[in-house]
Amino acid sequence: MIVELKPNTAKQRQDRLVEWLEELGLGVHVFEGESKTVLGLIGDTSKVDMELISSLEIVERVKKVNETFKCCNRRFHPDDTVIDVRGVKIGGGNFCVMAGPCSVESEEQIMTIARAVKKAGTHMLRGGAFKPRTSPYDFQGLKAEGIRLLIEARKETGLPIVTEIMSIADLPLFEDVDVLQVGARNMQNFDLLKVLGQTDKPILLKRGLANTLKELLMSAEYIMASGNERVILCERGIRTYSDYMRNTLDLSAVPMLHELSHLPVVVDPSHATGIARMVPPMTLAAVAAGCDGLEIEVHNDPKNALSDSAQQLTPEEFEKLSKRILVVRDAVT
Amino acid sequence: MIVELKPNTAKQRQDRLVEWLEELGLGVHVFEGESKTVLGLIGDTSKVDMELISSLEIVERVKKVNETFKCCNRRFHPDDTVIDVRGVKIGGGNFCVMAGPCSVESEEQIMTIARAVKKAGTHMLRGGAFKPRTSPYDFQGLKAEGIRLLIEARKETGLPIVTEIMSIADLPLFEDVDVLQVGARNMQNFDLLKVLGQTDKPILLKRGLANTLKELLMSAEYIMASGNERVILCERGIRTYSDYMRNTLDLSAVPMLHELSHLPVVVDPSHATGIARMVPPMTLAAVAAGCDGLEIEVHNDPKNALSDSAQQLTPEEFEKLSKRILVVRDAVT
Amino acid sequence: MIVELKPNTAKQRQDRLVEWLEELGLGVHVFEGESKTVLGLIGDTSKVDMELISSLEIVERVKKVNETFKCCNRRFHPDDTVIDVRGVKIGGGNFCVMAGPCSVESEEQIMTIARAVKKAGTHMLRGGAFKPRTSPYDFQGLKAEGIRLLIEARKETGLPIVTEIMSIADLPLFEDVDVLQVGARNMQNFDLLKVLGQTDKPILLKRGLANTLKELLMSAEYIMASGNERVILCERGIRTYSDYMRNTLDLSAVPMLHELSHLPVVVDPSHATGIARMVPPMTLAAVAAGCDGLEIEVHNDPKNALSDSAQQLTPEEFEKLSKRILVVRDAVT
Amino acid sequence: MIVELKPNTAKQRQDRLVEWLEELGLGVHVFEGESKTVLGLIGDTSKVDMELISSLEIVERVKKVNETFKCCNRRFHPDDTVIDVRGVKIGGGNFCVMAGPCSVESEEQIMTIARAVKKAGTHMLRGGAFKPRTSPYDFQGLKAEGIRLLIEARKETGLPIVTEIMSIADLPLFEDVDVLQVGARNMQNFDLLKVLGQTDKPILLKRGLANTLKELLMSAEYIMASGNERVILCERGIRTYSDYMRNTLDLSAVPMLHELSHLPVVVDPSHATGIARMVPPMTLAAVAAGCDGLEIEVHNDPKNALSDSAQQLTPEEFEKLSKRILVVRDAVT
Repeated sequence: MIVELKPNTAKQRQDRLVEWLEELGLGVHVFEGESKTVLGLIGDTSKVDMELISSLEIVERVKKVNETFKCCNRRFHPDDTVIDVRGVKIGGGNFCVMAGPCSVESEEQIMTIARAVKKAGTHMLRGGAFKPRTSPYDFQGLKAEGIRLLIEARKETGLPIVTEIMSIADLPLFEDVDVLQVGARNMQNFDLLKVLGQTDKPILLKRGLANTLKELLMSAEYIMASGNERVILCERGIRTYSDYMRNTLDLSAVPMLHELSHLPVVVDPSHATGIARMVPPMTLAAVAAGCDGLEIEVHNDPKNALSDSAQQLTPEEFEKLSKRILVVRDAVT
Repeated sequence: MIVELKPNTAKQRQDRLVEWLEELGLGVHVFEGESKTVLGLIGDTSKVDMELISSLEIVERVKKVNETFKCCNRRFHPDDTVIDVRGVKIGGGNFCVMAGPCSVESEEQIMTIARAVKKAGTHMLRGGAFKPRTSPYDFQGLKAEGIRLLIEARKETGLPIVTEIMSIADLPLFEDVDVLQVGARNMQNFDLLKVLGQTDKPILLKRGLANTLKELLMSAEYIMASGNERVILCERGIRTYSDYMRNTLDLSAVPMLHELSHLPVVVDPSHATGIARMVPPMTLAAVAAGCDGLEIEVHNDPKNALSDSAQQLTPEEFEKLSKRILVVRDAVT
Repeated sequence: MIVELKPNTAKQRQDRLVEWLEELGLGVHVFEGESKTVLGLIGDTSKVDMELISSLEIVERVKKVNETFKCCNRRFHPDDTVIDVRGVKIGGGNFCVMAGPCSVESEEQIMTIARAVKKAGTHMLRGGAFKPRTSPYDFQGLKAEGIRLLIEARKETGLPIVTEIMSIADLPLFEDVDVLQVGARNMQNFDLLKVLGQTDKPILLKRGLANTLKELLMSAEYIMASGNERVILCERGIRTYSDYMRNTLDLSAVPMLHELSHLPVVVDPSHATGIARMVPPMTLAAVAAGCDGLEIEVHNDPKNALSDSAQQLTPEEFEKLSKRILVVRDAVT
Repeated sequence: MIVELKPNTAKQRQDRLVEWLEELGLGVHVFEGESKTVLGLIGDTSKVDMELISSLEIVERVKKVNETFKCCNRRFHPDDTVIDVRGVKIGGGNFCVMAGPCSVESEEQIMTIARAVKKAGTHMLRGGAFKPRTSPYDFQGLKAEGIRLLIEARKETGLPIVTEIMSIADLPLFEDVDVLQVGARNMQNFDLLKVLGQTDKPILLKRGLANTLKELLMSAEYIMASGNERVILCERGIRTYSDYMRNTLDLSAVPMLHELSHLPVVVDPSHATGIARMVPPMTLAAVAAGCDGLEIEVHNDPKNALSDSAQQLTPEEFEKLSKRILVVRDAVT
């Protein structure tokens, strides 16, 4: 159920209404748009007297909605969400490039790459410390040490850091991380999502291997319904019968997610294609499709990378691409 | 087997070699690039004495190749194929927009739309006369009358016309059509492909519903091996478990097909999404991915269209989009 | 629109009603079940006065239906269709095994195999004369000669023959063939389906590579609406991201097609798996799922077969499997 | 790397070799088959002197293998694994039916169902206490109370219990559960798998929504490489473009997993189809395909079930099906 308030309702009166609804046992999400404030009611709304609420002076109207997603739904929150990460903004016209290696491998490696992507104008540094690998015998990441090195790299470059969390048990290690990434394989690890919903960290939520847009949004909903509304959606390619690419990048997800939700949408062309030379055209296509940001893998020595060596760009290739991103972005906005 | 000739080989000597190879029962495809001429041998090459050929004065080298596609393979034909349709070029840097209604419905309809897309700067007029429909009870197109109306529209606007052929039996009706389209459902109708390979018409070959890029190229190969090398490849969305779109537009097909083949690649964002308001962002994304052209559905009265009403743009929407296409194309080339 | 007649309506009165409906420009399909006769009206039924028809003495009731498939719909034709091919029956409790080589290769080959499958108790002989191949450079079948050899094999063994037709142009060559197969790649070659609908041959219609059950039934509808109601549906595996099998055999199609339609349903485990040693378990599973028949590839010398060598059983393997088919069929019926 | 020992090697000498290999920093898995013992070496085997080991008296031969899965690989462990759960065996010819409600809802519900499935001859009781739901607003299960009720039901019926674990944090609640289920959405929650690998509980590992067989086996490998070799694999349907079923049950997974691995394979026809009346034919098909067991949903009042009401059988339907399972199993073994 959705309660639209009249424009210019005093904050105090609004708060009193919220309190009263919460006393009825409902969850209340307050969506403050530029033009109007909307209350989204979650829980058993059958005990709510719609007529009573409608008749309140500060209420414009009450709508019984049957939307499966509430918190992330653009219908209840018409304005784009803008997420601020140490001053770097994403969403609502703010474009954000996150770049860095698939895995953090050593201090020298991450420092070299961090400097290079900073120079190329990137906004955040990405790097895997905990690596979800199909095989238990593959390199699983530097873990705590990897996070320490990312923090070092932030110290020098000032770039906020993004890295993947795989387990609730590791959460304390991420205290000083800026953006927590949930990987494709954990998109429906609902217990992890609920716990992340209790943190105050922005969450970069990647679409699962074969998940629909509705399922992606429902997973965002798990985080948001637990209290954390700072979710960034990420399209990273879906599994099909593609013969030359690792996955099929579904760029139509970008405009459709924007229509359905107010959350920022980024694209990861590196995992989607799995082939470095396919990253530039798919990056530019993603920008033209209207994404709010990109996550791109860059490595100083791709051939010897400990994971996903085939898909990482060199710093030189990334710098060239960064310039083209700006040109295409100019062309479409 | 591939025979690379030395640069500046006299045409006469080259012809003699080709003749001799053909006498051995082989098919010989001559690929004349700017820098070198390559002969692709098709058939049972086991009877060819590689050493003998290698020792010929005009031969640079002979390669035993195990490529599954030959005629459409960029390896044997490094330069982009440029196809000329009544002066309109596509491929090799020439960009071509084909626009028009899903189905030709009446003289007034096709004329109105043809004038509108011409005004918006489109290069060819598309329109369905024979319509492949899942149900035998749905509108099947105006057939011969539809082709007649397209020709009328060409007379007035000068736009070359593109329309789908579904059956070999209908071929005589397409004598005055400029580009013959093979729809997704007929991509592996090999008998149709072979017959089209014996015509001199450019063929717009659409990727099948769930076909791989290799299968698309093998179908192009059917046409080319039969003698018609003027094939345009078209990505139009593949079938997945997508929940909001009709199909999943696989834009990574664009750079990958360009890498594998020298043929022009166009994108059809209308069938891929099935939703008119998703066409503009996916069109711009396709342009940024590097396609050589677009096939876009435009209808003067989409709500009352006899087929695919949800996915057709109005002339006004198309005109606006046409301008944006130019801007993005400028940005990426 | 559906018109249910009263039980024991005189044939003459029924015919008069049908005639009158046809004069209104409607197609009328008469479904004569054991318990009742139902008329299915096809075409623009808006001009039919439902009240008038309802009031006729012989009419039980009239239903406005919005079913997408009519002729093949079990709702309008509750009894199983039984198709008789030279005395061999399929459907309605009659089980039919079709076996033979992927391709007819020589007189000796087809005769050897025909005798072997006959001995193993098979009901029909299958063999490809026209072969749809992804590559134009692969063996395309013996064509007319292949059909001639199949007819020879029938002469000796008495087994009715099943073989694939790829093009309308070849139809005269199939005059003496018993069952015409439409392959997966041609399932939506609607012009071919319409022409086959005008023949009096049973049609074995294979599900396309990535087609839904509804699309399969709509393709059956193309054949039936053109006048030929003898259609056998065939599940042969669909395209997914399977890593060890060629396709994913969708056995749930068997009970679901039986629920939706009255047509017989057969399963082809050979193409579905592409691996001979996987054919026996999947064959038994298909029988347990309730199919009406099987199409199984058998070759006297699989390793040297000209096509699909990996998936063909030897006559010995097939004979063993034939016995197990009977045991499982007994267990489930 | 694989070290095959000579037959009848003294246990003491074998242990000494294992110790020495472990001192080199390698993980050693000892596979004791009936005929021979094989050591699988995990980790960086580059430091191992193959010639030295080959020359040892007790060693038959050393093979450099590049197998991606080791512990679950039938090549290194030719005999079927048999898992014993409170006396109920599964695998190696032992067939096991697990039945019960999607969710445990109340004491009365679980007791009624437990008695009914026991009476029908089922071997274990399944029931969800922690429910992974796409939406955070859907019923999430009775949690700890659900497990308590399952234990009650075991007390009365003697049936071992199977229930799903979603989070490492909940592990203590599962101390008295017999088989821990990992759901499709958590198949690649690697941290959960590792922790379960350190328990001594049998793990029922369900194939993910769109995961390949190799990925399923690699996830089993995560559990086994952590020390727990009692893994049961479960096929439960994969995501395709199916139009009438929830998922596509991939029964070819049964014989293929048996070929690749020695682990038992069960099939869940309830989640695969999502439709109760499709469960019987798919159950029988699964049995005919050679599965080692089944997981079937049974509910005393399906229409009012709190989750997945459409797919649960009534006790009567289940009892009838149980009898048919035995008949088909007899027919195929």
